[in-house]
Amino acid sequence: MEINGYKPLERASVRAFDKNRRLDECTLDALLEAASHAPTTGNMQLYSVVVTRDPQQKELMTKLHLGQPAAANCHALLTFCADKHRFDLWCRANKATSGFQNLSGDLLAIVDATIFAQQFNTLAEAAGLGCCYLGTVTYDLEGFSKALKLPAGVVPLFSIAVGYPAEGAGAAPSDRLPLNAIVHRETYRDFSPADIDAAYSAKQALDESARFIAENGKETLAQVYSEVRYPAALNEKISADLKKVLDL
Amino acid sequence: MEINGYKPLERASVRAFDKNRRLDECTLDALLEAASHAPTTGNMQLYSVVVTRDPQQKELMTKLHLGQPAAANCHALLTFCADKHRFDLWCRANKATSGFQNLSGDLLAIVDATIFAQQFNTLAEAAGLGCCYLGTVTYDLEGFSKALKLPAGVVPLFSIAVGYPAEGAGAAPSDRLPLNAIVHRETYRDFSPADIDAAYSAKQALDESARFIAENGKETLAQVYSEVRYPAALNEKISADLKKVLDL
Repeated sequence: MEINGYKPLERASVRAFDKNRRLDECTLDALLEAASHAPTTGNMQLYSVVVTRDPQQKELMTKLHLGQPAAANCHALLTFCADKHRFDLWCRANKATSGFQNLSGDLLAIVDATIFAQQFNTLAEAAGLGCCYLGTVTYDLEGFSKALKLPAGVVPLFSIAVGYPAEGAGAAPSDRLPLNAIVHRETYRDFSPADIDAAYSAKQALDESARFIAENGKETLAQVYSEVRYPAALNEKISADLKKVLDL
Repeated sequence: MEINGYKPLERASVRAFDKNRRLDECTLDALLEAASHAPTTGNMQLYSVVVTRDPQQKELMTKLHLGQPAAANCHALLTFCADKHRFDLWCRANKATSGFQNLSGDLLAIVDATIFAQQFNTLAEAAGLGCCYLGTVTYDLEGFSKALKLPAGVVPLFSIAVGYPAEGAGAAPSDRLPLNAIVHRETYRDFSPADIDAAYSAKQALDESARFIAENGKETLAQVYSEVRYPAALNEKISADLKKVLDL
């Protein structure tokens, strides 16, 4: 496998897929195999992925993903999991006890799973596929765990919907903060109110932002994010669920 | 920026860097900018990166990284952070209150930071640079936070050492588990003892594994991992420190 012609600045998430094509299993497996060569803590690969292709299972997963069309219409739905379970079984079978039954182990597994997922995402995009992360897994951790029959020690984090893009899908890359809002030199240069304005002014000036504000009857874009899209109550509920499945 | 000729199956971490070359700031910034176009939750970019290039600061960071040569000799050391702080400041400046003062917010920020880091890692490798993740940041969260002057709400996760590889560095890609050990179809197929043996037998049969076992005076490779490299006591200490900086 070799990547050619991938343009990282022009990439965008794809949420609509070509109904006349299918993603064959060999292509998907080749991408997953290549992605597994991404870096991983101590070469332990504390992750796994569950691939959903079966129509009935896909329907169930789509329901859990709150009916999002990307889940329903993608050619394969991949759910990435932090997995300390397999490592634990290996230790037990080899006169050892895993040292990861704690938050540190969870963090390593979350980072490992995400590195693997992002490498998959990039390789799939480079191969002409479209991808979209779906963060709605944590909205119903128990539901996803049951649907995928995950044993204890395997925590689903997010899904990636993947498939050949529908014509015209995902054409416009979305905006990003200016580099100096995310990159610090030598030490963290904390933000003055003027710095924050400068960092977010381009985003706030987008037509899309004005539309979000109007549609949601809010005064500022930050209110749309913190009161409508990612409100504290939702995050508190997710946090309580996470505490049940992580080793805190 | 366009990627050509990147071979994901042949990549390997690089820990030795060319002393006669330097990584210019424009190249590094172009890679960071391109990486920032990786997917991010709700386009919030809940992350930041601190770049260490100053020799004195590099010495301090290397000490914190337990003297690892990759930190000392790299051309730039990048420390990736889960950052809820900037988003919080933006909300406060815009008549809003961030809903992320909880574990759910931490998870989003950790995933966001890792996606960004891995996209950087891939783009840097594709550009002919060598990279190595350093997980030792969590071994001294307080030390790193002080060295980088991180405000509350910014949690350092890991560093990536980057630079032009020394001749012959990182030539051999390391082994990975077989695909059926990490990929599950429709539902998680739990592992029988025979499955675990099959998943890890190739790894256990490596000369390198026999050397690790002998060098550490252990009986199994799993014991080297769980008793020497990642022992419970170390992870418990890290977990206690994480609990101080995450919103649990």
